[in-house]
Amino acid sequence: MTPPTKDPNAPAADTAPAFVLVRPQLAENVGTAARAMLNCGLDRMRLVAPREDWLSEKAIAAASGAEIVLRHARCYDSTEAALADRHRVLATTARRREMIKPVMTPRHAAGVIRAAAQGGQATAVLFGPERTGLENDDVALADAIVEVPLNPVHRSLNLAQAVLLVGYEWFQAGVDQPPVELLTNGGEMADRAMLLTFFRHLESELDACGFLRNADKRPGMVRNLRSLFERAELTRQEVRTLHGVVKELRWGRRPDRPRRSEGGSPDDWARGEEG
Amino acid sequence: MTPPTKDPNAPAADTAPAFVLVRPQLAENVGTAARAMLNCGLDRMRLVAPREDWLSEKAIAAASGAEIVLRHARCYDSTEAALADRHRVLATTARRREMIKPVMTPRHAAGVIRAAAQGGQATAVLFGPERTGLENDDVALADAIVEVPLNPVHRSLNLAQAVLLVGYEWFQAGVDQPPVELLTNGGEMADRAMLLTFFRHLESELDACGFLRNADKRPGMVRNLRSLFERAELTRQEVRTLHGVVKELRWGRRPDRPRRSEGGSPDDWARGEEG
Repeated sequence: MTPPTKDPNAPAADTAPAFVLVRPQLAENVGTAARAMLNCGLDRMRLVAPREDWLSEKAIAAASGAEIVLRHARCYDSTEAALADRHRVLATTARRREMIKPVMTPRHAAGVIRAAAQGGQATAVLFGPERTGLENDDVALADAIVEVPLNPVHRSLNLAQAVLLVGYEWFQAGVDQPPVELLTNGGEMADRAMLLTFFRHLESELDACGFLRNADKRPGMVRNLRSLFERAELTRQEVRTLHGVVKELRWGRRPDRPRRSEGGSPDDWARGEEG
Repeated sequence: MTPPTKDPNAPAADTAPAFVLVRPQLAENVGTAARAMLNCGLDRMRLVAPREDWLSEKAIAAASGAEIVLRHARCYDSTEAALADRHRVLATTARRREMIKPVMTPRHAAGVIRAAAQGGQATAVLFGPERTGLENDDVALADAIVEVPLNPVHRSLNLAQAVLLVGYEWFQAGVDQPPVELLTNGGEMADRAMLLTFFRHLESELDACGFLRNADKRPGMVRNLRSLFERAELTRQEVRTLHGVVKELRWGRRPDRPRRSEGGSPDDWARGEEG
């Protein structure tokens, strides 16, 4: 993962959007919005005429470790003033307005913001007051509207959740992380040779005990067993463990268990393993 | 947009994942998680040994309209019991475990869940208690881990936010909505003919008043002006408004303003508009 901010106390790079909270009502909500912003590597909060003190104890407690965002927040009298130095402005709204404007998903907006930033433009996203949302005059200051696709019969998000979803998409657009990977805790993956040695060990024991005695079905059964273990994406250590599992199931405490040095002993796999 | 649930009171389609909250501590957090679920069209909540009553007044107030999710929630003694009828299980975690498991983003997980559901498999996503997250034994019950890519130095999400992000991605994977569109409130877009009539009106007035007098620069200036208006993606009504703007700027209350019926009058555009 490539975090956009390496040091959480340093201001986010110039490419990060300012999140402008317009007339937020409760300091607590400003705090939870700050927390959501920092989750997404954003620390440029702007406040337009907040009703309460955004540095109150309540706000700082709600920020839950993101106090730095509140301390760096800049306060303005009007939305116009908060946006004066911005080139591209997006407004989040939950309901459609009587305005002819592009309306985009947060995912699309993330690309728009990043592209604008790459072109040297300063960006901002507007968020309205908790109950009422942005006024039309605020929305009219924006180039486009961001609308989160959500359950149409239960769309209402609180302020921090709206901030989180827009910030999340912005962060994802900059993440250089594979969508899926195997977490191995430093364990090395087994290569094909090691797998094949295990398969041969397993199959020879299954031949010996009679599990694969049906000659017609044997090739299919072997393929299915191999596929099952291949799908598991085994590490070297796991293959060693499986060798042990097979050996102990086969021989356990049986009195006829071959001695370690004997040819054809169950420890053969240990020699073949690296070969 | 294609909502996954048309009727919010009907249970979500069988294709929806169950969200399993393991040992949640505060009823209020169960409520906000329910709200976040319903935002994403999800109403299959399962609770494993919740500490408080998930139908308390506090929980219902926190659910903010998503009481239905709480009322339908099913309660289990153990994570194993909650997962018994599930085929594919994902566990959300904030920290890496000593386990060899695929770890995926919520976006990738959304595809995995939808693909499994298409194949007739029942799915679940596990969420741990507020402070501690899932225990290793819970994680071990899952096929894979979901980890939200977030600011590595400020990853901590509250329960409802984790639920929201995973649910949001699931919802997005089923949304059939263009990432960006022009919101026109039913206004029809202007076609090229209408635009060109406006361009000719504007340019003839700019010729008349001398703005385009530099013959060398005229072609470039005309192209730039046309591009500017084209970029705006004008509706028919907006083009009519712009004709009016040009006409009034040019003639306003001037005594020599041509009469309506005269040839070459500023009302010419109105005739050309539809031609």
